[in-house]
Amino acid sequence: MRRWNGWGDDSITFALNADALEFLRERIGVGVAPADAELSQICQQLPASRLTAHALIDTSPETRLRHSSGQSVPDWLKMRYGKIQTFPDGVAYPESIEELRTLLDYAGQRNIALIPYGGGTSVVGHLQVIASDQPVLSVDMSRLCGLLDLDKEAQLARFGAGTFGPDIEAQLRAQGYTLGHFPQSFEYSTLGGWVVTRSSGQQSLGYGRIENLFAGGRVETPQGRLDIRPFPASAAGPDLREILLGSEGRMGILTEATVRIRPLPACEEFHAVFFHDWDAAQAAIRAIVQAEPGLSMLRLSNATETLTSLTLAGHKKMIGVLESYLRLRGCGSEKCLLLLGASGDGRHVRHAIRSSLKIARGWQGIHVGRYMGEKWKQGRFKNVYLRNSLWEQGYVVDTVETACDWSKVKGMMLGMEQTGKDIMSSEDEKLHVYTHLSHLYAQGASVYTTFVYRLSGDFDRDMARWYKLKSAISRFIVSHGGTISHQHGVGYDHAPYLAVEKGELGMSSLHHLYRHFDPKGIMNPGKLLPAEGSLR
Amino acid sequence: MRRWNGWGDDSITFALNADALEFLRERIGVGVAPADAELSQICQQLPASRLTAHALIDTSPETRLRHSSGQSVPDWLKMRYGKIQTFPDGVAYPESIEELRTLLDYAGQRNIALIPYGGGTSVVGHLQVIASDQPVLSVDMSRLCGLLDLDKEAQLARFGAGTFGPDIEAQLRAQGYTLGHFPQSFEYSTLGGWVVTRSSGQQSLGYGRIENLFAGGRVETPQGRLDIRPFPASAAGPDLREILLGSEGRMGILTEATVRIRPLPACEEFHAVFFHDWDAAQAAIRAIVQAEPGLSMLRLSNATETLTSLTLAGHKKMIGVLESYLRLRGCGSEKCLLLLGASGDGRHVRHAIRSSLKIARGWQGIHVGRYMGEKWKQGRFKNVYLRNSLWEQGYVVDTVETACDWSKVKGMMLGMEQTGKDIMSSEDEKLHVYTHLSHLYAQGASVYTTFVYRLSGDFDRDMARWYKLKSAISRFIVSHGGTISHQHGVGYDHAPYLAVEKGELGMSSLHHLYRHFDPKGIMNPGKLLPAEGSLR
Repeated sequence: MRRWNGWGDDSITFALNADALEFLRERIGVGVAPADAELSQICQQLPASRLTAHALIDTSPETRLRHSSGQSVPDWLKMRYGKIQTFPDGVAYPESIEELRTLLDYAGQRNIALIPYGGGTSVVGHLQVIASDQPVLSVDMSRLCGLLDLDKEAQLARFGAGTFGPDIEAQLRAQGYTLGHFPQSFEYSTLGGWVVTRSSGQQSLGYGRIENLFAGGRVETPQGRLDIRPFPASAAGPDLREILLGSEGRMGILTEATVRIRPLPACEEFHAVFFHDWDAAQAAIRAIVQAEPGLSMLRLSNATETLTSLTLAGHKKMIGVLESYLRLRGCGSEKCLLLLGASGDGRHVRHAIRSSLKIARGWQGIHVGRYMGEKWKQGRFKNVYLRNSLWEQGYVVDTVETACDWSKVKGMMLGMEQTGKDIMSSEDEKLHVYTHLSHLYAQGASVYTTFVYRLSGDFDRDMARWYKLKSAISRFIVSHGGTISHQHGVGYDHAPYLAVEKGELGMSSLHHLYRHFDPKGIMNPGKLLPAEGSLR
Repeated sequence: MRRWNGWGDDSITFALNADALEFLRERIGVGVAPADAELSQICQQLPASRLTAHALIDTSPETRLRHSSGQSVPDWLKMRYGKIQTFPDGVAYPESIEELRTLLDYAGQRNIALIPYGGGTSVVGHLQVIASDQPVLSVDMSRLCGLLDLDKEAQLARFGAGTFGPDIEAQLRAQGYTLGHFPQSFEYSTLGGWVVTRSSGQQSLGYGRIENLFAGGRVETPQGRLDIRPFPASAAGPDLREILLGSEGRMGILTEATVRIRPLPACEEFHAVFFHDWDAAQAAIRAIVQAEPGLSMLRLSNATETLTSLTLAGHKKMIGVLESYLRLRGCGSEKCLLLLGASGDGRHVRHAIRSSLKIARGWQGIHVGRYMGEKWKQGRFKNVYLRNSLWEQGYVVDTVETACDWSKVKGMMLGMEQTGKDIMSSEDEKLHVYTHLSHLYAQGASVYTTFVYRLSGDFDRDMARWYKLKSAISRFIVSHGGTISHQHGVGYDHAPYLAVEKGELGMSSLHHLYRHFDPKGIMNPGKLLPAEGSLR
């Protein structure tokens, strides 16, 4: 069964090996896990629903509790410490567009706020219930799901927006196709969620971001239905897809999405390359991505992440052999691991990998074959389960991310890491921090930094610490030319920083636009766009 | 000097060879060119400007006349017959953003409509002055031009929005880069025009449409400045670039654009392949584009276009030899010409061409080498001069275009052609009509149909005939699942049909959005969006 207060199914555990635990303890001290709150206890204390009975709305405490949070650190802190303050007043599971329409009209008449719920994997507070007099209804989209139509000639598939990643791939693979969209949340996130938060998959280099894959769809808004027709391309004015992409529930609810699919690749390979240090690695990957060799994935870890990954991997002996080999080739403690992948027919894959490795050699990149790449592929959706194991050892894991131009990438990485260290140091705590570039562009890269630090055992202190970290890093990102999010979206947590990149006129235009679809302001209020004139 | 009533520089002529003229005369009869109106005469009769004197505004008749039209058939008819009814009351050539700001504020205070003017190449009436009590100021952007900044690391270049295609390429090539955006209007169109009309270049298959190339920019709107920051990618809410792309002057005026550039390709090849008939050709190109071999161009002509191109090319003897060879290989009168190109390093180009030709052979495609492809490349911006020569022989050339999914492509082509023939037949005239697919996508293709027919010698009859053709074809396109424009934009001529694809709520949301930037409605009124509630 799915964990109510952690990641994923409770039958799946990503155990932390003894060496990895020792490694962490040396770096940031021994952690102590606080006692978890009990599901049953929280359910007993849940405030009464403010909604009157409705055939489509479930107001049972456990259902409301399970829809109250996403997967951000504050969400976890509230769940684990039993401090969730706000809950949706009910949850609806519409099974048809008509039922959804009924719910929208009902909410409009009674001034009920709606929070669309896909897979509940948001890490930036998209699902947070904001305390207010307005009752809140969570709209769980999981029953508006499945493959509705497949056009092999146009390589288009239409799905219910509530379809989960694995179901999308299973239904397409049965017919020889793939969408190729694999965010780390893949197992528990939905197509609709991907679209409205501008999700990015691990192989977006080859398959494209969700913006490229989403061809059209059907949106129910408080003001009616918007059908966005899927054309191969169009110059007919602004593209309506683009006002839905990233709308995060403010515009309405996506019910169906047509996506661009591809034949399953005949061949897919992931290779690993080590570089002596960051500067060589970054120069090499910039050269690779700008040469457009046709890869589907590039991911570069900095030295600390490389060390952390090798330690987490276990297989101490084998890693020892690898490290000896790398040392002989001049790769020491500053070594950085690059994973690169290609997908397609065999000829394409060989060509893409070979051209990339050739460029990498120009910066003394050492190709170590496919083993580590294949391991990465196997574990790509499992790593996130590590959050559970680390919590149980008294550690919290947080991630922050941005994207910026190449000239800013290294400074962004160093600055994000240093800002985190400074904050934790001011708290008399240590931070284990490491970074990778997960999405590469000719123009620049995403910068994805992971923080591991100890839980204090006190909810308020942990919340304050998280807030201090989050706000300092977010301010650093936007003041150094990064976007406030490359892949997680805006939600509640990033909303205060959005205006720096959109500008005053940009922000007011988005407010104005969404207000047209939602004049009463019932759609996911407080997310994406802070209330006008009330920047936190 | 640039022709005031035709295409391009008056020192350049694309002469029609005798065989081509004979070919046309056989098909649609002998044409007779009406006498052209004189520039000086029109200037003498120009209505007085309704603007009071302003240091930044030129109200001289010739300048106003030269900014009154684009390059659509009705534009030509009005210019050639001397029947232009409406003119801008003045033309401004802002040399700085401050001057542009002054003009915007001035227009706002005095309720003057502004028509942004790039290169004047619109074929759908973007520049049309709509008769109204509101004075009209044309804002010629040609002095806000030039390369402002080049970031080689991020492969970004910032240009003044009024920079013309050849200047963009010249400035980039001097430093080893290219934008790779080559619409047919390249010689006389501007970067700003490309962005706000969602332009598509002939090599968009490799370089991307302007949507992909445009990274960010600066827009002056009546409500102030909007800076759209160029990130490599972002999930931070809706993408503001996308409300500018396709805004066609309704939102404000783009003053600077940052675009994604690439190193000049070391190698570029264009090859030609003949197919026995359309069905084989379409099946082959769909297979090629869906295999993603890394081409930068694919262009498939139908049988009539193939015949027309071969006839226009002259070189009767050589073409005769080619046709004999093709007949031996089974390619007769239904043969269709495919041009395909690749750009990059030599290895990439060879791989892309070879993989594509291999697929083409599966449908009996006959590769005839590079000669025709290279000829196409040489003439790519010259063909459009043919409009001048044809007019002088009494023929008008019009083009209509759309994009649709693969399953609709053939029906769209046949339907567009037949609709045109039926209309002309009802006028007791013949139509020479042919089609190519110029932009290929995994999902479908653009369908680009050319009409050649005789001028009647009477302005009103020719205008009525054009309108009948345009409206019948446009209705056909949108009712058969095509977009009203793949590459020409909406402007004035396509505006009545936009609602079919955007829907009522989509249309009202765009109205609402642009009204936020332009509360008084001074920005290019009547273009893109028909006045609300007044669909023509």
